[in-house]
Amino acid sequence: MEKITIAIAGYGNVGRSVEAAIKLNADTELVAVFTRRPERVREELTDVSVLRSEDPVPVDIEIDVVILCGGSKDDIPVQGPQFAARFNTVDSFDTHAAIPSYFERMDSIAQEHGHVTIISAGWDPGIFSLMRVLGDAFLPQGKQYTFWGRGVSQGHSDAARRVKGVFDARAYTIPIESAVQRVRDREAPEFTKREMHKRLVYVVPEPGADQERIRKDIGTMPHYYDEYDTEVAFITQEEMAENHTKLPHGGFVFASGMTGARNKHMLEYRCQLESNSEFTANVLVACARAAYTLKKEGRSGAFTILDIPPRYLSPHSPETLREDFM
Amino acid sequence: MEKITIAIAGYGNVGRSVEAAIKLNADTELVAVFTRRPERVREELTDVSVLRSEDPVPVDIEIDVVILCGGSKDDIPVQGPQFAARFNTVDSFDTHAAIPSYFERMDSIAQEHGHVTIISAGWDPGIFSLMRVLGDAFLPQGKQYTFWGRGVSQGHSDAARRVKGVFDARAYTIPIESAVQRVRDREAPEFTKREMHKRLVYVVPEPGADQERIRKDIGTMPHYYDEYDTEVAFITQEEMAENHTKLPHGGFVFASGMTGARNKHMLEYRCQLESNSEFTANVLVACARAAYTLKKEGRSGAFTILDIPPRYLSPHSPETLREDFM
Repeated sequence: MEKITIAIAGYGNVGRSVEAAIKLNADTELVAVFTRRPERVREELTDVSVLRSEDPVPVDIEIDVVILCGGSKDDIPVQGPQFAARFNTVDSFDTHAAIPSYFERMDSIAQEHGHVTIISAGWDPGIFSLMRVLGDAFLPQGKQYTFWGRGVSQGHSDAARRVKGVFDARAYTIPIESAVQRVRDREAPEFTKREMHKRLVYVVPEPGADQERIRKDIGTMPHYYDEYDTEVAFITQEEMAENHTKLPHGGFVFASGMTGARNKHMLEYRCQLESNSEFTANVLVACARAAYTLKKEGRSGAFTILDIPPRYLSPHSPETLREDFM
Repeated sequence: MEKITIAIAGYGNVGRSVEAAIKLNADTELVAVFTRRPERVREELTDVSVLRSEDPVPVDIEIDVVILCGGSKDDIPVQGPQFAARFNTVDSFDTHAAIPSYFERMDSIAQEHGHVTIISAGWDPGIFSLMRVLGDAFLPQGKQYTFWGRGVSQGHSDAARRVKGVFDARAYTIPIESAVQRVRDREAPEFTKREMHKRLVYVVPEPGADQERIRKDIGTMPHYYDEYDTEVAFITQEEMAENHTKLPHGGFVFASGMTGARNKHMLEYRCQLESNSEFTANVLVACARAAYTLKKEGRSGAFTILDIPPRYLSPHSPETLREDFM
């Protein structure tokens, strides 16, 4: 079998998860890693080419798709355009408000260079976006709800860590169960932010820190915590290491609506992920497969999961899909 | 706004549901109905053209897409090829085992005549097929489960009605809650048919009929009931009319799997439909929109939901989708 050759840009948590995901997919193969620290990565990875971003690719290596594994805040906005000028790319750019402008930029660069670039792939944005679009298409004039959690919010964890007297912190986003149930029961409720999610922050305080002040500083932090009911729980460093190193996440997308004779319908999509980055990595690899097919078809420009025929994500032939999955 | 003009072929339960669904979608318009009984349908429908299947279309009517609303057993296998030779079509052909051969037939006819035909649109086959493919693509080497119900199975109701002494019957397919929960808890269990679903049949007996014999005849009926635990409940004709006229349905698609570092993931899609036919009708209308776009792009041949970029199902522009749904 001819394999789809993949390079990873950025060998951190997501990069390593993509490396593992490639091993789960028999039709994909890791051939190169782009990194800022090639010397260090070469010690770990001996069987693939390890390069700096700006390095030329050795002539004996052909890269079908580069998966960008940096962060959405600082890395992808810079790396995306650079790599899309040289390769087909896939990324998980997840700053929702900036997706339209990032799409336009990537589209024009990818078109200019004849490449395919799939942006904002993952579970949200990504699969959840798809579910919102399908829910709206199948239940027009209905209502949609997205709940996140229970899961670790890295942005909120970072914010809590910046509070004076906090040695370490881990913030969980938790959907409010009674709100989820009201939606599932087809009540079509209206919610404030506070009514849909709460936050739970585990904090390791510095020795002698004022716990009441920390609790107040976190709970009233604008944008991050003030619009939610937030519980702060103080734990030891040992408890943090033992119970809070994994990065689980998940959530729900609901679409509810009525049809002709006032019949109510509910579509519910839920994911429960023990590792956010590992699952996202698997979505990225499926999208790399789609990018490869789109490119073979002669397409170029930017795509999201909304633009891709779903079977391009699958390793199976159209015949097998009709036979075994329809 | 230029509207997508739709004709319905078959003015029964699904046909009427499609008529209602078109009214919910501002970009679609019903312009014609094909029926075997035009005189009778004309009494109900005064503002659209009512035609026999073989009739030529009046010159002042342009039909973008015909939605086939007949049954999968007898109507669609005959009507599909006839209409695909004359129009772009959408249907909900749902005989799973025959989908590959029906696809091939429709593909060759539609290609020959330069039309687009979307087959097997609905929730299963249709949305559930899509969820199975996505689950398999995102969690390779995982396991998938489809549960149906709680909902009315018309095929099983018909079968029960053929038993001697049965005046009327309504059969419900019910997923076994403990099995659903084991899947949701990521146990990755193996099941027999009997362990996933049970059946509940409400029967109105004929006067003086032997209820024990009816119970046994239904429960042991090959293919339909013998592989399931089946409960038969005897009710009056009044109870049947009061509690069992709606055709609710629904179900679950689960995909579970592990990634790199042995982390478990679960994707769950659920639908709860108060009216099977009305929801299916809405999916058919969204697919008619996609057929219209595919045709405008110059495409022809047969498609399933697996072949269609999801945004083609939506009434919104690509920009709006990136802005509001990603």
